Amino acid sequence: MTGSSLPTKIESREAAEEFMNKYDSFLFDCDGVLWLGNYLLPNIRETLAMLKSRGKKLYFVTNNSTKSRAAYMKKFASFDIPVSQDQIFTSSYAAALYVSGHIGLVPGRDKVWVFGESGIIDELKLMGYDTLGGKDPLLDIPFDPETSPFLVNGLDPDVKCVLAGLDTNVNYHRMSVTLQYLQKPGVAFVATNLDSTLPLKGVILPGAGTTISSLVTASGREPIACGKPNLNMLRSIIDATNLDTSRTCMVGDRLNTDIKFGTDGMLGTLLVLTGIETEENALNPNSELPRPMYYSKGLSMLYELTNDA
Amino acid sequence: MTGSSLPTKIESREAAEEFMNKYDSFLFDCDGVLWLGNYLLPNIRETLAMLKSRGKKLYFVTNNSTKSRAAYMKKFASFDIPVSQDQIFTSSYAAALYVSGHIGLVPGRDKVWVFGESGIIDELKLMGYDTLGGKDPLLDIPFDPETSPFLVNGLDPDVKCVLAGLDTNVNYHRMSVTLQYLQKPGVAFVATNLDSTLPLKGVILPGAGTTISSLVTASGREPIACGKPNLNMLRSIIDATNLDTSRTCMVGDRLNTDIKFGTDGMLGTLLVLTGIETEENALNPNSELPRPMYYSKGLSMLYELTNDA
Repeated sequence: MTGSSLPTKIESREAAEEFMNKYDSFLFDCDGVLWLGNYLLPNIRETLAMLKSRGKKLYFVTNNSTKSRAAYMKKFASFDIPVSQDQIFTSSYAAALYVSGHIGLVPGRDKVWVFGESGIIDELKLMGYDTLGGKDPLLDIPFDPETSPFLVNGLDPDVKCVLAGLDTNVNYHRMSVTLQYLQKPGVAFVATNLDSTLPLKGVILPGAGTTISSLVTASGREPIACGKPNLNMLRSIIDATNLDTSRTCMVGDRLNTDIKFGTDGMLGTLLVLTGIETEENALNPNSELPRPMYYSKGLSMLYELTNDA
Repeated sequence: MTGSSLPTKIESREAAEEFMNKYDSFLFDCDGVLWLGNYLLPNIRETLAMLKSRGKKLYFVTNNSTKSRAAYMKKFASFDIPVSQDQIFTSSYAAALYVSGHIGLVPGRDKVWVFGESGIIDELKLMGYDTLGGKDPLLDIPFDPETSPFLVNGLDPDVKCVLAGLDTNVNYHRMSVTLQYLQKPGVAFVATNLDSTLPLKGVILPGAGTTISSLVTASGREPIACGKPNLNMLRSIIDATNLDTSRTCMVGDRLNTDIKFGTDGMLGTLLVLTGIETEENALNPNSELPRPMYYSKGLSMLYELTNDA
């Protein structure tokens, strides 16, 4: 499936039933699909319960690196949606798996410099890694190379990787020290994701890719991005869940991350219009982006079209 | 002069005399040429005095946007080098001239949103423009789109330009509000310069181009950069000084800004090795960069090779 044929709009009971019968597992992006920030979209709880009652396996796959899987579980619980940690895959978890599996950093010996928030730090700590940087309040002090506590005694030689994600605490001190580590050839450069923007409370805000592009410009280096659409994220989901990709559908609101991820991974794809894309984009994406196989006004259409009540 | 022939090294009295006889005016980059941060390089005061005694016109052309021309005069005075304001050209002054001349913003009516430091604000104020943003301490408060004083009452409709430069006060609040202005099609996007790095106190730090690349990634827009190597900077110098470009030499420490600026502007070029480049770079720049016509260990060689004492 190349994603090049015209997408099917799900707007009848028959189309919804046919769609659901094709798949045993569903991977859901969260923001823009299930909720918008702290606002749960209508009938999402009911839609997920209906899919579960039909025996479908549900997984949640987000590029938001600021929260750990444990923090995501709390968010689902706050919406009264029962979800276990092994159903949740975040870009910070994918990045921690990459640091461990692909780069082979040794917990207790090798350290990670974090340019990002607690989602990254929590997942690295769960794997036994010591982290530096991140939200350390010493990085909130105005930067001077001659007094920065991160530079005065030299860089930490045990740091073998910079892991960067969205950092709403970004400042010149964090950027400058991160750059010093990136100037060392033996230090790997890994990113959770490169989304350029982030919709929040009605405005478009700088995403992880924005602050990371500062590091790219300053260092001349490009990171490995572990979130969607990188297929390492899919491989780690397959490793953990044994899902059958031919019977799995990726559901998302972004063509350049979610639908690309599903298309590249040979999954089915459903674009929902409750997030960033419009119907025009779904039907006529620019030539660099794949088309979804299906699209609908929202995920809840699956419930609303098939609910007899 | 395309900058493609092999550079002449100035290492004899004859070469120094021949070089100086070719030019009536010299444009000097400052950091890496005259000084390193707050450290004046040896014999620079003597070299500038010697050139002046020979009737040469001296101008100082810097991409550092954090200081105004007035602040630069104080810096020269602190080194006991007599310089008047009309000898100084900074990227923030060039950007303010661009806002006024090319974009045609009207002082007292149109406002400028500043993502940068006091050099930019001071030069815009001298031309009568009201500025917003910059070092405003309200931008140091953690960002929330629902409470930011720059967003709660909507964007200021009088802002017609975002002017961005090096901002060591960069944070998520500044980036987010700047992005909102860049999302308005009627708002111009101007940068002082796009230098990716900045040498300071022995370390390589993020330059203006680093923080500006965040804005580029988030907005999908590219700014006009007014500093070297943009020739608007040279045109404003010619307008102000009436110098004869065929008898003018640009002296700098960077191939991609100073030497490119001199080469593109049909000036003579002298690369000094007291800053960012090595002799290998001078002789074998990568194919995208021009070669200098002359190079020397340092600017002071002109004095040291010709001083009879």
